[in-house]
Amino acid sequence: MIRFDSDYVQGTHPRILERLLKTNKTEYPGYGTDEHVRRAKAHIQAACQAPEADVHLMVGGTAANLTIIASILRPHQGVISPDSGHISTNETGAIEATGHKVLTVPNTAGKLTAEQIRAMHDAHWAKGNREHVVQPGMVFISHPTEVGTVYTLAELEAISAVCREKGLPLMLDGARLGYGLAAIGTDVTLPDIARLCDAFYIGGTKVGALFGEAVVFPNPKFGQEFRYHIKQHGGMLAKGFLLGIQFECMFEDGLYFELGRHGVAEAAYLREGMLELGIPMQYDTKANQLFPRLPDGLVKTLLNDFTFHQWEKPNETETVIRLCTSWSTKRESVEAFLEAIKRG
Amino acid sequence: MIRFDSDYVQGTHPRILERLLKTNKTEYPGYGTDEHVRRAKAHIQAACQAPEADVHLMVGGTAANLTIIASILRPHQGVISPDSGHISTNETGAIEATGHKVLTVPNTAGKLTAEQIRAMHDAHWAKGNREHVVQPGMVFISHPTEVGTVYTLAELEAISAVCREKGLPLMLDGARLGYGLAAIGTDVTLPDIARLCDAFYIGGTKVGALFGEAVVFPNPKFGQEFRYHIKQHGGMLAKGFLLGIQFECMFEDGLYFELGRHGVAEAAYLREGMLELGIPMQYDTKANQLFPRLPDGLVKTLLNDFTFHQWEKPNETETVIRLCTSWSTKRESVEAFLEAIKRG
Amino acid sequence: MIRFDSDYVQGTHPRILERLLKTNKTEYPGYGTDEHVRRAKAHIQAACQAPEADVHLMVGGTAANLTIIASILRPHQGVISPDSGHISTNETGAIEATGHKVLTVPNTAGKLTAEQIRAMHDAHWAKGNREHVVQPGMVFISHPTEVGTVYTLAELEAISAVCREKGLPLMLDGARLGYGLAAIGTDVTLPDIARLCDAFYIGGTKVGALFGEAVVFPNPKFGQEFRYHIKQHGGMLAKGFLLGIQFECMFEDGLYFELGRHGVAEAAYLREGMLELGIPMQYDTKANQLFPRLPDGLVKTLLNDFTFHQWEKPNETETVIRLCTSWSTKRESVEAFLEAIKRG
Amino acid sequence: MIRFDSDYVQGTHPRILERLLKTNKTEYPGYGTDEHVRRAKAHIQAACQAPEADVHLMVGGTAANLTIIASILRPHQGVISPDSGHISTNETGAIEATGHKVLTVPNTAGKLTAEQIRAMHDAHWAKGNREHVVQPGMVFISHPTEVGTVYTLAELEAISAVCREKGLPLMLDGARLGYGLAAIGTDVTLPDIARLCDAFYIGGTKVGALFGEAVVFPNPKFGQEFRYHIKQHGGMLAKGFLLGIQFECMFEDGLYFELGRHGVAEAAYLREGMLELGIPMQYDTKANQLFPRLPDGLVKTLLNDFTFHQWEKPNETETVIRLCTSWSTKRESVEAFLEAIKRG
Repeated sequence: MIRFDSDYVQGTHPRILERLLKTNKTEYPGYGTDEHVRRAKAHIQAACQAPEADVHLMVGGTAANLTIIASILRPHQGVISPDSGHISTNETGAIEATGHKVLTVPNTAGKLTAEQIRAMHDAHWAKGNREHVVQPGMVFISHPTEVGTVYTLAELEAISAVCREKGLPLMLDGARLGYGLAAIGTDVTLPDIARLCDAFYIGGTKVGALFGEAVVFPNPKFGQEFRYHIKQHGGMLAKGFLLGIQFECMFEDGLYFELGRHGVAEAAYLREGMLELGIPMQYDTKANQLFPRLPDGLVKTLLNDFTFHQWEKPNETETVIRLCTSWSTKRESVEAFLEAIKRG
Repeated sequence: MIRFDSDYVQGTHPRILERLLKTNKTEYPGYGTDEHVRRAKAHIQAACQAPEADVHLMVGGTAANLTIIASILRPHQGVISPDSGHISTNETGAIEATGHKVLTVPNTAGKLTAEQIRAMHDAHWAKGNREHVVQPGMVFISHPTEVGTVYTLAELEAISAVCREKGLPLMLDGARLGYGLAAIGTDVTLPDIARLCDAFYIGGTKVGALFGEAVVFPNPKFGQEFRYHIKQHGGMLAKGFLLGIQFECMFEDGLYFELGRHGVAEAAYLREGMLELGIPMQYDTKANQLFPRLPDGLVKTLLNDFTFHQWEKPNETETVIRLCTSWSTKRESVEAFLEAIKRG
Repeated sequence: MIRFDSDYVQGTHPRILERLLKTNKTEYPGYGTDEHVRRAKAHIQAACQAPEADVHLMVGGTAANLTIIASILRPHQGVISPDSGHISTNETGAIEATGHKVLTVPNTAGKLTAEQIRAMHDAHWAKGNREHVVQPGMVFISHPTEVGTVYTLAELEAISAVCREKGLPLMLDGARLGYGLAAIGTDVTLPDIARLCDAFYIGGTKVGALFGEAVVFPNPKFGQEFRYHIKQHGGMLAKGFLLGIQFECMFEDGLYFELGRHGVAEAAYLREGMLELGIPMQYDTKANQLFPRLPDGLVKTLLNDFTFHQWEKPNETETVIRLCTSWSTKRESVEAFLEAIKRG
Repeated sequence: MIRFDSDYVQGTHPRILERLLKTNKTEYPGYGTDEHVRRAKAHIQAACQAPEADVHLMVGGTAANLTIIASILRPHQGVISPDSGHISTNETGAIEATGHKVLTVPNTAGKLTAEQIRAMHDAHWAKGNREHVVQPGMVFISHPTEVGTVYTLAELEAISAVCREKGLPLMLDGARLGYGLAAIGTDVTLPDIARLCDAFYIGGTKVGALFGEAVVFPNPKFGQEFRYHIKQHGGMLAKGFLLGIQFECMFEDGLYFELGRHGVAEAAYLREGMLELGIPMQYDTKANQLFPRLPDGLVKTLLNDFTFHQWEKPNETETVIRLCTSWSTKRESVEAFLEAIKRG
């Protein structure tokens, strides 16, 4: 079985595993107060061109999302999100469990716009009895989005500008950020994100780490008491050095970016191959997720040898599937998939 | 610097790391739906002599505590805990953040008694206006406790009996369970715990795993929808196979118990050595934590070469410190500590 | 200024005020343990033809909604509601503040259907990874709805049947129930509601009481520990006898139903008057709310002498307004409004 | 049966009921946006000598406590309270249900001291791993306390000073404030409280209103978005004018203070009477609660004709009972109680 169902189907990049092996017998203090975490943070600050940024290493994406949001909002506030956002559709009410409503706006290919944010904000403050309604308190976006699209720099700048004008902290879910930064034709860099967002995280789990997400608060005021929040929500890893070692390894010499590029290159190859075979793509993705529309019979055949998500059913005879490539995707797997399509 | 400040100062047992290396290139499905998790669960069911038990692998102890408790209690209920319990003293209000009060009773060397549970339960139900007060809804104990003591089988049986009589699910925090099961003179076995408790977890993080706690619901009804709760609280590891591989390795042939015995043996050696040097112990611990009372000057000297917690200040001139040994403690480290005390 | 902006613009029906006067010097026990509450409950049980029903008197509607829902759901569950439901649109995230997501489905004139409930339930349970999504745990409807419509008995029976088949407790928000029961042509009675729902409340605030909502659990198992929940959420009135006196007065001889009929009669008169004047109605309401569509200029003129909500803006030149009549609406106010429209 | 079990055994002062009668047919806007609320606020600001104060009228004490605290704290913070505080002992976990721990310190006759606050604050900030523990975020006191004692001005000033030095907002539960302000020998005035606290409420329910608590934020920044919080927790009264009418009536010409003095005068008379009869008092109370220690047999006899709480059981043969007088206590009831004691 060849897996395209997610970007976390294998352990970790060999260089990271070696590093864990090498440090395995060293004794470290707990909870991320060690030297590897310190160095990882410094590398990340450098990569973000944000020397003042506060950086926190966490284990997973849902925990990062809920902890960041709960740490920023006041009780009567909610988070604006596209209706396709992971926090809205796919986290078992994790945000609501911290007491907050997710204020959804219709997505366009997984994205929301500066205008939608402005409109929701202004509509709230124009109301007479606004205290009867949840107050918009921050904005949540993903890059890449749930359907593999990426924001342009102009879009991000417009969103950031309206957020700052309206006093709405902007948070970016970067669970797949490595692939977003390597997306074909993207003009968005990590320093851009650090400049435009108030909180974001750099996903490790999906981009070559065993596990781990680096939460970044470019403006350190947001992160000041964040360790309390991590602990309260059960996210403080006892052996924090495991996170430090991994992120140090990924950011000391650009491994993270390299892994992102690999995942995108395999997706691009797979995409070109399918387009040549006449398979249409449901979303115009440039990162590591593909959404081809296939005849139902072919989908059934492919499931014998490959794993993937059945995403949407646009009509009676076809299914949109989601394919994820990743840092660990082998070219031979991609070729095998294309061959299987050819065979039909 | 030699570390006695916690039982999670090193990575993981070499056998586990080898296993991670060996499986590193295999592709797995996500979220713990893989074969390693399946096998790990079967091994744990066998070790617990509880073939019906529901087993869930989580990353850390605070998350296990808060998720178990939030999944069991109704909103108007609280959890009875000794006032020294980790959930009361040391988790940044994690239980309260899920909406529940921790109902503390005074501890005796870290433990509570069946009589205290009965008394708190009966006092509540004897009240006329009981709805003005939090209803006791379950019981939380640790084994070993925060101060390294262990329950006897008779104590556990009495606690379990009163809990069942009163309809209070009994939960046992086993973050250090490996050491508790190996404690000098203990008559409590893992099957005893599975027989007497409604929920408990087998701590991996402190007993040789990179990370991981195996949550066990001997009565599967408590675990039925537990995966929703794990996800909601941000505790669902994407690469769940990492937990499966570790727990499979620790439970397929008794490694877990061996590591527990090692930690206890080193603690016993250290304890004997200190007693011979005339150092009194504040708590009569038989597992892997020691609480010697030392002159302040000596504490200061020791801090040059060793790490440990300064636990209590019983008088003007002495300090009670906490020393943790573990699966990774080397005899030479213990000898070095005893030497340092001798040198004074 | 004549008020049509809500159904709670005046104090209370004179008979209730007299009763408060008459009992004002009597001493009562606290928290609703008095004889008036006892009698009020008995009258309500009788009116519901539900002698086993558990009845709790609360102060307001939002508190009733959030307390009922929080008392029924498990943490990982959400409440299915039409997207127009008060809990979704108008309660400042009160449900989310108790940790639960409101699972909205598109409304049809304020209502949802049995089929929508079945579809949402079945879609959830058909999923493979359902623990990544909030589990539907109960159903919320209003009668009358936010836009003044009422369910037919057939609709309610279908909803109740699917709820029972799927194990989803059905809750009915009856903030305006008095008007719903008196709605023109309705075939739904209070005993029907008690037979078909698992929880509902009979709104007093909007139907002639100073304040108060009678929460009814026809199946007493749902109400068993409800007083804890009321207290926890700050809803336990110290002088509970004030609620008892009011509901006793409203239910001992049918005053409640009479007040409901009055409000509906005035709405019907107003509706007929406007239809005769050629004013179209946006929703086909039969209870005490009307949603006429008026030219913007006329709306502006009317605002000089009347209060009402500007509900929707269907086009550039017209506005849909909401008019509420109530137990206290005077015929002369209705005539004055119709006159004002005629004058234009 | 003569009631001394609470200070809310009767409806309301006749003057308030008359006012409700007089305004009963007037039409008002909802949610406290009416002229009576406006005037009530102005009267309260004047009585507090705090013209900038933000004033919010709520229905009950538990709701006031939980809403104030939830509106002030950040998620990782708890509220310091004496262990006898109502929020700790008697509100069904209302504070925990909003996600916050109550950080208790031992009370001295119901009070805490400036030194205890300083000690708890400093102990937290002195810790190395403070993020593992709930951060003290505000201070809760009651005046009068649960056992009827009052703070001296010097005590309050010391508490306020340490709170301001440490950045801990100070909240005062004034459910019985009318009696506290009238306490024998007190040197604390309402303007003192407004000057020294960041949030407090003036209890109406126990001091002559039908219901109602006036929440005051002397520094309006704390109250700015408080209406959202009231609504979210279900505490926004639809007919807010009912609260406005009552507080206007109580504060326009000093009725509130007069009612407080009445309750205290009756308590003083009762206290003197009992002392003369040789009955010892457990707490040295100067407001409207008395805690006489009586032989168990006498308690049993008294329960035939009087209601009161059995508070503590200090020994085998005696019981401390709690007697509440109030604005509505009649001298003849007090005499009857003294007579009954004499008869034995």
